Amino acid sequence: MIRKVFYISDGTAITAEVFGHAVLSQFPLEFDGLTIPFVETIKKAEAVKAQIDDCFITTGERPLIFHSIVNPDIRDVIYSSEGLDYDFLNTFVAPLEKQLGVAPTPVLHRTHGKTNEGYDARIEAINYTMENDDGQTMKHMDKADIILLGVSRCGKTPSSLYLSMQFGIKAANYPFTEDDMDNLKLPDALKRNKSKLFGLTIDPVRLHEIRQSRLSNSRYSSLRQCRTEVKEVEMLYKRERIPFVNTTNQSVEEIATKIIEATHLDRNNF
Amino acid sequence: MIRKVFYISDGTAITAEVFGHAVLSQFPLEFDGLTIPFVETIKKAEAVKAQIDDCFITTGERPLIFHSIVNPDIRDVIYSSEGLDYDFLNTFVAPLEKQLGVAPTPVLHRTHGKTNEGYDARIEAINYTMENDDGQTMKHMDKADIILLGVSRCGKTPSSLYLSMQFGIKAANYPFTEDDMDNLKLPDALKRNKSKLFGLTIDPVRLHEIRQSRLSNSRYSSLRQCRTEVKEVEMLYKRERIPFVNTTNQSVEEIATKIIEATHLDRNNF
Repeated sequence: MIRKVFYISDGTAITAEVFGHAVLSQFPLEFDGLTIPFVETIKKAEAVKAQIDDCFITTGERPLIFHSIVNPDIRDVIYSSEGLDYDFLNTFVAPLEKQLGVAPTPVLHRTHGKTNEGYDARIEAINYTMENDDGQTMKHMDKADIILLGVSRCGKTPSSLYLSMQFGIKAANYPFTEDDMDNLKLPDALKRNKSKLFGLTIDPVRLHEIRQSRLSNSRYSSLRQCRTEVKEVEMLYKRERIPFVNTTNQSVEEIATKIIEATHLDRNNF
Repeated sequence: MIRKVFYISDGTAITAEVFGHAVLSQFPLEFDGLTIPFVETIKKAEAVKAQIDDCFITTGERPLIFHSIVNPDIRDVIYSSEGLDYDFLNTFVAPLEKQLGVAPTPVLHRTHGKTNEGYDARIEAINYTMENDDGQTMKHMDKADIILLGVSRCGKTPSSLYLSMQFGIKAANYPFTEDDMDNLKLPDALKRNKSKLFGLTIDPVRLHEIRQSRLSNSRYSSLRQCRTEVKEVEMLYKRERIPFVNTTNQSVEEIATKIIEATHLDRNNF
C-alpha cells in the first residue's frame, strides 16, 4: 500500500511540497501525494478534512499531512482530521520567537506572493533571459548579469531560465555552432563582457545521446561531431580563461547553484 | 542589528532556503542571509564552522542556521559551531520513521538532483515552452498540455515558464495583439485544442503601467488601448467559455497554482 500524503496551504502550497518532498525523500518508499492550495476558508478546510478522513477510512492508514496554514482557525480544522500532521512551520516558530525576542506576525501569502521584494526585478530578469536566449540577438549583452556559453544541447537554456526564475539573475546565453568550429572565437559583444562569461561543457557521449533523440543520424548528432565541438569549446574556455562547469548528470538546480557559487552573483530568492 | 542567517547544504541548499525563508517570513524582521551549497567534505564544513564562529564573535549574536546536510559526520561539524541550528529535516525524520516503520536511507542530492524521476520530461517541457512562447509558431499546439492566452504583458510568458520549470507542464502561449481587436477570434490551431485553452486577464490600469514602463506614450501603452484589449479579450473568453484568471497582484507561483487547480493538470514537482 502506497502511503497517501496531503500537502495543504492557504497559499500556493509550494513550500509545503518542497519541505514534504525533502523529508520523505529520506525514506526508500513511494508516496502518493495530493496538493491542495488556497485553503483560505473554514468551509474549504472542512472539505479537505472530509477528504483526509475519507482516505483514512478507505485505506485504513492515517494519511501524512504537510501544511503551511497561517490562520489558526483554519489550521485547527486540519488538526482535527484523522491525518498525521507534521507541522514544519510552527514547530520552529516558538523557538525562534524566544531567540529573536519578537512575536511572529503571520501574514498570508508571504512566501510565494507578490509582496516579496524584488518581484518586478525578477519578472524583468525572466523577460531578459527569454529575449536573449540562444544568441538570437547580441544587442543587450551589456545588460546581462551573466552570459552562458556552450554547444547546442549542453543545457544553456534551462540553466539560464532557472537562474532568472529562481534567483532573479539576468542570464543571456550564446551557442557555438558547427560552423564556428574551424575558427572558434568570441564575438565582440562577448569579448567586451568577458567578466560575465561562463562556459558549460558536457560529456560528448551524453551529448550524442541527447542530440540523437532530437535529430537522429545527422552530422549534428554524430558522436564524432559531438567530440569535436566539445573539445574545441573546452580549448576556447581554457585559452580565454573562462570558468566552466560540466553539466553531465547534473540537474538545472545543481548547475545554477554551481554557477552562482563560482561567480559570487547575488543569490536572491523567490 | 540585522540577524545573520546561514543556509547550508551538501546539495544545492535550495530546500534549506525555501524552508528558512518560510519560517523567517513569519517574523516582522529583516535578516541577512548567506547560502553555502555543496558542503560535501569535513574540510569544507570546518571552513563554514569557522565562518559561523567568526560571525558570532564579530556581531555578538549567534547566527541562525538552516541546514539540510545528510552525512552525520559533516553535520556534527556544523552542530559544533556557535550557530543556532534549526534542523528542519531531522526533526521530522524520527517521528516519520516510527510511523512508517522503515529506516531512513539518506541519499545525497535526492531533492534537487537529477535522480528525480521525470527529469528528462521536465527539460523537454522547458524546451517546448521556450519554442512555443508568444505564438511564434502554431505548429506544435497539438502537443501542448496547456495553452495560455492573453494580451501583451499580462503575464503569459513567466507563467508558462514557471509551469514548465516547476511542474514539468508543456505550456504554450498565444498573444492577442492590437490588430486582432476588431474581429477577435481563435486561430484554427487553438480551436481544435479548445480544451487546453486557459485565459489570463489583468486590470487595465496595471496593464497600462506595465506597458508604459516598456514603451511610454505609445498607442500600445495608452490606457484607452489597454481597456479596449482587456474588454475584448474577456468577452472572447466568456463567449468561448474559456476559463480565465486575473493576474493583477498575483505572483507567477500563484497564477501557475491557480491554473493547475482549475484545470486538474498533474502537479509534478521538481
